[in-house]
Amino acid sequence: RVNGDRLWASLMELAKIGATEKGGVKRLTLTDLDKQGRDLVVGWAKEAGMSITIDQIGNVFMRRDGRNNALPPIMTGSHIDTQPTGGKFDGNYGVLAGIEVVRTLNDHGVQTEAPIEVAFWTNEEGSRFVPVMMGSGVFCGAFTLEHAYAARDVDGKTVGEELERIGYKGDQVPGQHPIGAYFETHIEQGPVLEDEGKVIGVVPAVMGLSWYDCTVTGMEAHAGPTPMHLRKDAMQVSTRIIQEVVSIANRYPPYGRGTVGMMQVFPNSRNVIPGEVKFSIDLRNVNDELLNTMHEEMLAFIEKTRQETRLGIKIERVSYYPPCPFHPDCVEAVRSATASLGYSTMDVVSGAGHDAIYAARVAPAGMIFVPCKDGISHNEIEDAKPEHLEAGCNVLLHAMLERARA
Amino acid sequence: RVNGDRLWASLMELAKIGATEKGGVKRLTLTDLDKQGRDLVVGWAKEAGMSITIDQIGNVFMRRDGRNNALPPIMTGSHIDTQPTGGKFDGNYGVLAGIEVVRTLNDHGVQTEAPIEVAFWTNEEGSRFVPVMMGSGVFCGAFTLEHAYAARDVDGKTVGEELERIGYKGDQVPGQHPIGAYFETHIEQGPVLEDEGKVIGVVPAVMGLSWYDCTVTGMEAHAGPTPMHLRKDAMQVSTRIIQEVVSIANRYPPYGRGTVGMMQVFPNSRNVIPGEVKFSIDLRNVNDELLNTMHEEMLAFIEKTRQETRLGIKIERVSYYPPCPFHPDCVEAVRSATASLGYSTMDVVSGAGHDAIYAARVAPAGMIFVPCKDGISHNEIEDAKPEHLEAGCNVLLHAMLERARA
Ligand SMILES: NC(=O)NCCC(=O)O
Ligand SMILES: NC(=O)NCCC(=O)O
Repeated sequence: RVNGDRLWASLMELAKIGATEKGGVKRLTLTDLDKQGRDLVVGWAKEAGMSITIDQIGNVFMRRDGRNNALPPIMTGSHIDTQPTGGKFDGNYGVLAGIEVVRTLNDHGVQTEAPIEVAFWTNEEGSRFVPVMMGSGVFCGAFTLEHAYAARDVDGKTVGEELERIGYKGDQVPGQHPIGAYFETHIEQGPVLEDEGKVIGVVPAVMGLSWYDCTVTGMEAHAGPTPMHLRKDAMQVSTRIIQEVVSIANRYPPYGRGTVGMMQVFPNSRNVIPGEVKFSIDLRNVNDELLNTMHEEMLAFIEKTRQETRLGIKIERVSYYPPCPFHPDCVEAVRSATASLGYSTMDVVSGAGHDAIYAARVAPAGMIFVPCKDGISHNEIEDAKPEHLEAGCNVLLHAMLERARA
Repeated sequence: RVNGDRLWASLMELAKIGATEKGGVKRLTLTDLDKQGRDLVVGWAKEAGMSITIDQIGNVFMRRDGRNNALPPIMTGSHIDTQPTGGKFDGNYGVLAGIEVVRTLNDHGVQTEAPIEVAFWTNEEGSRFVPVMMGSGVFCGAFTLEHAYAARDVDGKTVGEELERIGYKGDQVPGQHPIGAYFETHIEQGPVLEDEGKVIGVVPAVMGLSWYDCTVTGMEAHAGPTPMHLRKDAMQVSTRIIQEVVSIANRYPPYGRGTVGMMQVFPNSRNVIPGEVKFSIDLRNVNDELLNTMHEEMLAFIEKTRQETRLGIKIERVSYYPPCPFHPDCVEAVRSATASLGYSTMDVVSGAGHDAIYAARVAPAGMIFVPCKDGISHNEIEDAKPEHLEAGCNVLLHAMLERARA
């Protein structure tokens, strides 16, 4: 069993770097603070006897040798960059749980057959540089190193420059690093485990995700003199579509998700009928067939609305991440570790993207969720219980051992 | 009959002051450009033999004596300030139509029994300083001079300072200026006349207007991991209310109006369920009973929605202008002038507030509408036909003569 107090102490120490007044963390990727966080974690890994490899996109692999070092390592990992108003646990927990697994193996003098590695991936959050999950994305070949290097922040600085500046542009070619199996522990970032009173979420899959930009164009006009029947009210037509987004998600339970999170209104004046409204649409579901059905129903509704209202409606897909089922062996390793440890458990499909979905493209992968308070994440008030974090780490230890010994 | 070409030429000359590239006018109240516009109009009035009085809020009264100067003047007027992206006709037409009436009387050597006055009121638009219709509002005692003087623009300048600076802080106490009857010609700012193919709108009344700020408070959460049934989605609840705003207006035709023109979403991120949405509501109708029914139905719907969704919904009335029926004598004067001139006509209830609603609190008042292109106003592309402007001016001439001779 892992040492929960030590895990918690490390989490709290890492959280001091970039700590915010409201108890959160602001440690954006490739900043000076990120360098301090990386240095701290790498220092801990070295103290635990691990060797360090860094690849060209700044992914860091911290290795504990096995008996047979020709075997590909059993890896765990996540990220230590945060949102601008982020919490202490998102990503950081997954990395420090890996360090705690190694410390525990050291404490008990356990040798594994395959090597054990702990990774942290560059720029998972995507807040400073797009795309999100950049390090793992380059690693698995989802996009090129050059593409990632060229990404700029709002001040015009590039990923390539900033990696160099903080001293984390490594030598290894991304992806030229074998992985035997990949596990990632993470706070759930949702309310399901807490709502159901369970400690461990076994994650069979990550939902697919479609992002759209929708623009409704009507005719700007004065709110008083324009009779209802002569209006081309972009706001009204938008609200019909926004309600349908939720209806579509509700038609495909339990994993259907439909969200409109962003809206801009033009001219945005109290007594002017909006001439143009732009908003985002986020659709998710657990498999391609369901997600595609939702996509088609949305397009059909928009077409019908276009014909009924005669307003201009433009819809454009801006991102797509296919659903990602995890490897049955890894899911099973998590499930049986949880069972043998006696934790209350349920399956939780991940609604959010994680580095594990890119890792899953190059190796068998799986995830372990623990509850977070009120399901809140990407928020300075993000919180989790020490005993839940310890439980997730114990499951990680056992799942990795099962794979690393085999 | 008035001289339509002369009226048009004056409109085009005034429109040069603050002309925008897109053919509109930006001449915000109490700016240097407003001073230039005021000086131009006052110069024309003096050329036409009129005498000038300015009150303490900068309302300007330009007078042509009658045979019996003890009689209260028959007045017409409007405003010459514009929106930031305004047009050439809104307000300006009403003032220059008055100047054209006087020029026509001069041309034909007509003497009236009562004096004739042309007024322009300070800050009708309310774009630079709130409240709107400031000059006429102070004049009729809707709010105090001190309140108006203290209003600040975004740079912190006050109405009092700016009036002084441009030399239009007069001596007369606002309201200490008798009015026998008040007429205002204006472009319709709506599509009804054009839609019905009529030239003159007789305006029996101005709709009442209720403005609200509504805030829906849910719980910010991640768009992926949060199942539909555990969400508190402020956007979804807002769209229900926004659709009801339109339904309520549609239940009280033909003058019911319901508009949501302004919205702000927090945190306004693509993959975050909105935790808070703020929006404006604008309800209008022709009489107090109907407007109040709409108000009550909206509050009832919000209460029902609050109970059904358990989200926080705050609704606050931020402005209220009661419906304003015009004086039967003035409405009749406009109607019979239109009939005697043979113009096609219909009654059009004004959906927008005008200085005339404040003038109506201290004198018999009426309005005359002419069509504007596509019903568009508060826009640089605002347009109107010379022959329609001429027709409206002819109606004004005849209506004023009827009152001024009586
Ligand atoms: N974990 C996370 O927030 N990933 C970003 C993409 C998503 O919205 O799922
Ligand atoms: N004419 C005008 O735009 N008045 C402002 C108040 C309103 O929205 O009616």
